[in-house]
Amino acid sequence: MNYKMIRYILGTILKVEALLMCLPALVAFWYGEGDLLPFLVTILVASGLGLGLALKRPQNTVIYAREGFVITSLSWIVMSLVGALPFRLAGAIPHYIDAVFETVSGFTTTGASILTDVEAMGRGLLFWRSFTHWVGGMGVLVFLLAILPLAGGRNVHIMRAESPGPVVGKLVPRVRGTAKILYGIYITMTLILIGLLLLGGMPLYDSAVHAFGTAGTGGFGIWGDSIAHYDSAYIDLVLSVGMVLFGVNFNIYYLLLMGKVKSILRSEELRWYLGIIAGSTLLIAWNILPEMGGMLRSLRFSFFQVASIITTTGFATADFNLWPELSRVLLLALMFLGACAGSTGGGMKVSRLIIMLKSAKKEINRMLHPRSVHILKFEEKPLDDNTSRNVFIYFFILVAVVMASTMVVSLDNMDFDSTFSAVVACINNIGPGLGVVGPMGGYASLSYRSKVVLILDMLLGRLEIFPMLMLFAPSVWMTKRRKN
Amino acid sequence: MNYKMIRYILGTILKVEALLMCLPALVAFWYGEGDLLPFLVTILVASGLGLGLALKRPQNTVIYAREGFVITSLSWIVMSLVGALPFRLAGAIPHYIDAVFETVSGFTTTGASILTDVEAMGRGLLFWRSFTHWVGGMGVLVFLLAILPLAGGRNVHIMRAESPGPVVGKLVPRVRGTAKILYGIYITMTLILIGLLLLGGMPLYDSAVHAFGTAGTGGFGIWGDSIAHYDSAYIDLVLSVGMVLFGVNFNIYYLLLMGKVKSILRSEELRWYLGIIAGSTLLIAWNILPEMGGMLRSLRFSFFQVASIITTTGFATADFNLWPELSRVLLLALMFLGACAGSTGGGMKVSRLIIMLKSAKKEINRMLHPRSVHILKFEEKPLDDNTSRNVFIYFFILVAVVMASTMVVSLDNMDFDSTFSAVVACINNIGPGLGVVGPMGGYASLSYRSKVVLILDMLLGRLEIFPMLMLFAPSVWMTKRRKN
Repeated sequence: MNYKMIRYILGTILKVEALLMCLPALVAFWYGEGDLLPFLVTILVASGLGLGLALKRPQNTVIYAREGFVITSLSWIVMSLVGALPFRLAGAIPHYIDAVFETVSGFTTTGASILTDVEAMGRGLLFWRSFTHWVGGMGVLVFLLAILPLAGGRNVHIMRAESPGPVVGKLVPRVRGTAKILYGIYITMTLILIGLLLLGGMPLYDSAVHAFGTAGTGGFGIWGDSIAHYDSAYIDLVLSVGMVLFGVNFNIYYLLLMGKVKSILRSEELRWYLGIIAGSTLLIAWNILPEMGGMLRSLRFSFFQVASIITTTGFATADFNLWPELSRVLLLALMFLGACAGSTGGGMKVSRLIIMLKSAKKEINRMLHPRSVHILKFEEKPLDDNTSRNVFIYFFILVAVVMASTMVVSLDNMDFDSTFSAVVACINNIGPGLGVVGPMGGYASLSYRSKVVLILDMLLGRLEIFPMLMLFAPSVWMTKRRKN
Repeated sequence: MNYKMIRYILGTILKVEALLMCLPALVAFWYGEGDLLPFLVTILVASGLGLGLALKRPQNTVIYAREGFVITSLSWIVMSLVGALPFRLAGAIPHYIDAVFETVSGFTTTGASILTDVEAMGRGLLFWRSFTHWVGGMGVLVFLLAILPLAGGRNVHIMRAESPGPVVGKLVPRVRGTAKILYGIYITMTLILIGLLLLGGMPLYDSAVHAFGTAGTGGFGIWGDSIAHYDSAYIDLVLSVGMVLFGVNFNIYYLLLMGKVKSILRSEELRWYLGIIAGSTLLIAWNILPEMGGMLRSLRFSFFQVASIITTTGFATADFNLWPELSRVLLLALMFLGACAGSTGGGMKVSRLIIMLKSAKKEINRMLHPRSVHILKFEEKPLDDNTSRNVFIYFFILVAVVMASTMVVSLDNMDFDSTFSAVVACINNIGPGLGVVGPMGGYASLSYRSKVVLILDMLLGRLEIFPMLMLFAPSVWMTKRRKN
């Protein structure tokens, strides 16, 4: 294990975090609501720690898979522990575990909140809270890869642990080049979204904050009733479409830039993703029609909620916890599904569903015709056994962790939909669930035992399970290097 | 497709069902409660149909995988459709779909009931209701294989589709020999159980009926409050241990007969199964201690319920729907897990869990040390990729069907625990769930749409998913025979 390199990268990440925190500090200074000092203290702590850890660049910069996984997991944990300080120091969140919960929820783009009165918080802190979504959305390490001159070209392991979805699409051969292109697209789309929200009459501060929440598919807002506060069909539509677009595989936008429209149209995952959104929107619109009193209005609320849940954002324009049972169950299923691979969204990803469905179909054919040979294809390429096996194991571990977490959270003795949906909404990085943790409720009333479990679930989900699990694998920490 | 052979076997099964129905007819005659005539009519119908279909033995008796799957699925469906007639004809269950629900629930050893007042039903019908558990428990077709002189030795396909668990253990080389041994063990254990219940002061009729429900891991009883009716620690203990024993892989008993105790002690599945029962019992006993007011009493009720749920029987000595949330969630998880492969129990089976856990561990090692080679072993034999892949696909389809079924049942607008647990309890062949369908509730109030879905789920679960799915695969019904 290359501990020096781990230390060096963690230090660098802290320095970057200190730098990122200057933006909310500026906002806090601008509004002068008294939350500037906590930021300055945290910036000092982060940069001090960062400088200390990353003082000397190690001679041996080579890292392997296990270092990659460990660095990824620890980065998110360290960033969250430090990022939680302003909330605690300002006294806005009195208990440190709550502050960490809120920050992990931010960086993992979950959007689950322990705040009971979000509107009471200062605008600097609220800005930081939403900004963590934006930073987390694209993956801090992809960001670092684009900036930091790390030697060796070994960084692909970090990127693989970081990128959502079963397969990392190699846009360009060099990792750093890929990260730069992705980041350029990300920034441009965020700016366009801010512009569109401004056009709808939303103030600049609100527009920026909600664009961060949308781009990172996070879901933190600044009002107790989320997006329902604006009560504007235009803003609902802009955000709905925005969420859907940030849930698309960013490779698609790269192909768009290259003018390869035909390749886009052939993307199986995109077609499934849009098809599932359309189907779910229609089904829920039909289901809530009686209480909406009009098809257009029904479609508006249904589309917003489907887009918000499938992309794992978690914004709300209505209390879907009060919708009929079919809509609630469908939204719960979409929470598991999640957005496209290679997007900022969480969840299991549409591509994993497609791979599992195709494998199941193949298995049935194999049982019927044991000697026939059938090659499985996904996105026009043959699907190798390793990818397919990894997807099924991923799914199994996801369900197993959901069950185990549900048991621990059940000790809080909430009703079953609250208990179960809290876990589902956290591990899939959605935010609001059903019942107590519904869109108009929150996580404040849960025990700290449950909150710690949910913090781990959010990290586990965001890092696509394996990197976090490896922190607990003894063979990762054994000093002796196996031949691998 | 060898349609003649399918017709011939279905006819034979109907003849056997007519024969089996003579036993409840005798009971009805003995008690003289007016439910004899419906049995006589059904016996006439079944034997008439059976004789018609199985009039001439086909010349070509060779059947392949797809015929095996089709025969298995259709047998269970036909047996249930005919087996439901006495309930309908006697007027005890006025609606035919309800009667089919009750009969499918019987044959699949589920034990989910649409009766609102079970004690009002005649003793002949109640006997038949519980007898279907016993017949279904060991698999009608295994039974047939032991009796019927079907030519060719091709019957292994039927047996594979029928036997619970991922791998069919070949006890002896000849299929018919295997079935005979299994059946001998099954009958002996049932008789011992009846004897033990008689010793506890239970009347003969009650003992037989509850022994059928235990042996088949079914769960139909004859009292509104299930086993709580007897309020006897001795009976609770006998049934608890009985359920646990019928949830064990029957290969174990064969090994016991052969005196191979060492092999038994080495069985991984048995150790896990007993370990999970012990752990869950202790956890629930601790969780319900405050309301039970004594550790011994707490253990008695906890052990009974854990045994009842993990073996997918579904008897109840308490209303576990009212227990604290942890106990409810844990029982729900045990519903998914199920008993051992090769037992009469339903669910996913402990061996599948072990295989998935081991595969997940191997996958993590593979990601950490990509070039290391690690052979997966289960029950001391190397586990081949095909078995492991099949298990994961099984698990994925199970979860997918649960989700889809939950959506349809959610149209009934019950609360989430009722909706979800109804599907889980039916597809895993348990019977009672939580909420509306809890141990002191039932399935009567559900819509016929939901009941039909749950009927399909019970069959799907009992036949381990694939055979039923194949009824919907177009390639099964294509006349052209592929080279396979």
